Amino acid sequence: MPMNRVCEMTGAEFPLFAFSHCRDVVAAVSKAGGFGVLGATRFTPEQLEEELAWIDAHVDGAPYGVDVLVPEVIDPRVRELSDNKSRAAAIDPAYQGFVNSVLGQYGIAPEPEMPILKERMGITPENGLALMEVAFRHPIRLIANALGIAPAAMIAEGKRRGVPVAALVGAKEHAIRQAEAGVDIIVAQGTEAGGHCGEVSTLVLIPEVVRELARAGHEIPVLAAGGIMTGGQMAGMMAAGAQGAWTGSIWLATPEAETSEAFRDKMVAARSRDTVRSRSRTGKPARQLKTAWHDAWDAAEGPGTLPMPLMGMVSEPAFARIEREAAAGNEGARELVSYFVGQGVGLVEQVRSSRQVVQDFREEFLEAVGGLAAAVGME
Amino acid sequence: MPMNRVCEMTGAEFPLFAFSHCRDVVAAVSKAGGFGVLGATRFTPEQLEEELAWIDAHVDGAPYGVDVLVPEVIDPRVRELSDNKSRAAAIDPAYQGFVNSVLGQYGIAPEPEMPILKERMGITPENGLALMEVAFRHPIRLIANALGIAPAAMIAEGKRRGVPVAALVGAKEHAIRQAEAGVDIIVAQGTEAGGHCGEVSTLVLIPEVVRELARAGHEIPVLAAGGIMTGGQMAGMMAAGAQGAWTGSIWLATPEAETSEAFRDKMVAARSRDTVRSRSRTGKPARQLKTAWHDAWDAAEGPGTLPMPLMGMVSEPAFARIEREAAAGNEGARELVSYFVGQGVGLVEQVRSSRQVVQDFREEFLEAVGGLAAAVGME
Repeated sequence: MPMNRVCEMTGAEFPLFAFSHCRDVVAAVSKAGGFGVLGATRFTPEQLEEELAWIDAHVDGAPYGVDVLVPEVIDPRVRELSDNKSRAAAIDPAYQGFVNSVLGQYGIAPEPEMPILKERMGITPENGLALMEVAFRHPIRLIANALGIAPAAMIAEGKRRGVPVAALVGAKEHAIRQAEAGVDIIVAQGTEAGGHCGEVSTLVLIPEVVRELARAGHEIPVLAAGGIMTGGQMAGMMAAGAQGAWTGSIWLATPEAETSEAFRDKMVAARSRDTVRSRSRTGKPARQLKTAWHDAWDAAEGPGTLPMPLMGMVSEPAFARIEREAAAGNEGARELVSYFVGQGVGLVEQVRSSRQVVQDFREEFLEAVGGLAAAVGME
Repeated sequence: MPMNRVCEMTGAEFPLFAFSHCRDVVAAVSKAGGFGVLGATRFTPEQLEEELAWIDAHVDGAPYGVDVLVPEVIDPRVRELSDNKSRAAAIDPAYQGFVNSVLGQYGIAPEPEMPILKERMGITPENGLALMEVAFRHPIRLIANALGIAPAAMIAEGKRRGVPVAALVGAKEHAIRQAEAGVDIIVAQGTEAGGHCGEVSTLVLIPEVVRELARAGHEIPVLAAGGIMTGGQMAGMMAAGAQGAWTGSIWLATPEAETSEAFRDKMVAARSRDTVRSRSRTGKPARQLKTAWHDAWDAAEGPGTLPMPLMGMVSEPAFARIEREAAAGNEGARELVSYFVGQGVGLVEQVRSSRQVVQDFREEFLEAVGGLAAAVGME
């Protein structure tokens, strides 16, 4: 019997939703009874097709989903720039100079020219919609969107195919707007989350969103996102009104993930205080492991950050460079290694397989529920 | 039978700890089965004596506690200033001018001279210790401290009298230092909390602190603080490892509280996003309802904030003035009304009596535990 409504809607046995850019994580989580969601943003449509075909072949029929980003609001500074070449041309060369100076302080030699992102498409509405079309060609059980209201095309196609549409929000007003647009599942994401996030904590946001949706007459399940690394926390957010957990950072510390060994080592060592919510990687506030990169961009005397997607066009080649240098043994580069990760990084004690993480969540979840039941004499 | 260890230690029937500056809240919560804790910082020793005598006479023998602030680290700029007069003399007159200009923009006429806080003692180590001595003369079942390691005198006296000492922390390292100093209960307070707070969310901080204490061999109960306004959230944080909840903001929305009607109206209207963590009221980062006051002080072109306790000597007379003007019907002053409150303010929907709040917590708690137990088939 499904545990609750969100399990019925998605086919998840245990409502642990795992966002990952890595197909291996997605397949492993779904096969273990959770629900893997592939983050599609970094793929071209052709690459995404290949990834989803792989998942279809390896997931043993277990349910999975896809997450795309279709930004609702485009910064006026980039609205007229329709391809990566014109976008790159719009970036003041001073930015590359600043990148070179930051990297140079950590022993990474300068690059004379701004590398243009070719393979990676950038976070734009047209790219998001192209990825969505690919996703719908596969037997997905969920499609998720962030950075604004889910587009009408996604909601219509989801309804037509019976695929629930989930939307990430960081404030109750946004949840209401999504519900009014026809979204089926709300992922309420707290400020402690890795990647793009708002300012309100998960613990406060969950009951606030659940109540506001109920008051407005929307019977929509809410998943809790931000800071959840254990089954005890997951049970906790379900006690506070969520129907399950939406997780991201925990999967970065699995051997299947796209992360480097250098970053996973940093995850194990990091405390919860070692992250920062900064615009310096994507152009929008996103939480990541804090390094000198963030200090430099967020400093008053720096050049300031660029709008999305320009900021990523500057930062991503730099971080790729940092990773290469770190992998080659450059200790300075290792200091700069960073990635999107939430405050929950302080709870990562070791690298575990995705399958093991799901099993641990399930055990911790049962233990937490049993402990609470015993405390109130329900044993 | 006590629900858990923290109930055994303190005599609380239900581990809902209520921090309040108002004796009526303290007595009402304790009588309803929770555990009231009187915030003593704003009283002189004589006033505190009076407050505690009142509680003793009205609490019907139910257990209660006292919270004092003995700051561990004193800013070098104020170390030599031993009384409020010398402290006031050390404040640049430009600060009063800035206050007058901020208030003036909201229709509050300027005051020519800096009023010196006479009655209120200011947050200093000697004042905290004087209040502690008064507290120990009463039948308290808990003494709590914040702003650093609990002083040796408090721990020694607590042990001698069998009164558990609790310490508020915002990071796992601080929890370990408190445990090593001999503290009996850790209150781990997340960034969403009202008043002084750190940067890590409650949801992440609780398991992080619980694990770190266990790893170091300290068998110390942890209470969860920050953002908790419902019994469902309380159950949630207990699922995540806490033994109970330490709450503050929720009691500000009771008719018994020291808050003004203007502020309680604002609490009911506020969203969770309407708070700010700012140094502009006490000199240390403290979360409060966001107004133009905070924008002005936190702006780059402002005069900057002062160290504790000087900042409070500037801000408190200003806020007292704002409250008086607001009560007299000045709409501009009403806009500036603010107080220490957490992000949970977004969950306040109405003013309820303290007794009702405790009852609601207990019902919500049981409902949340029952819901989780049913979801895992434990019914």
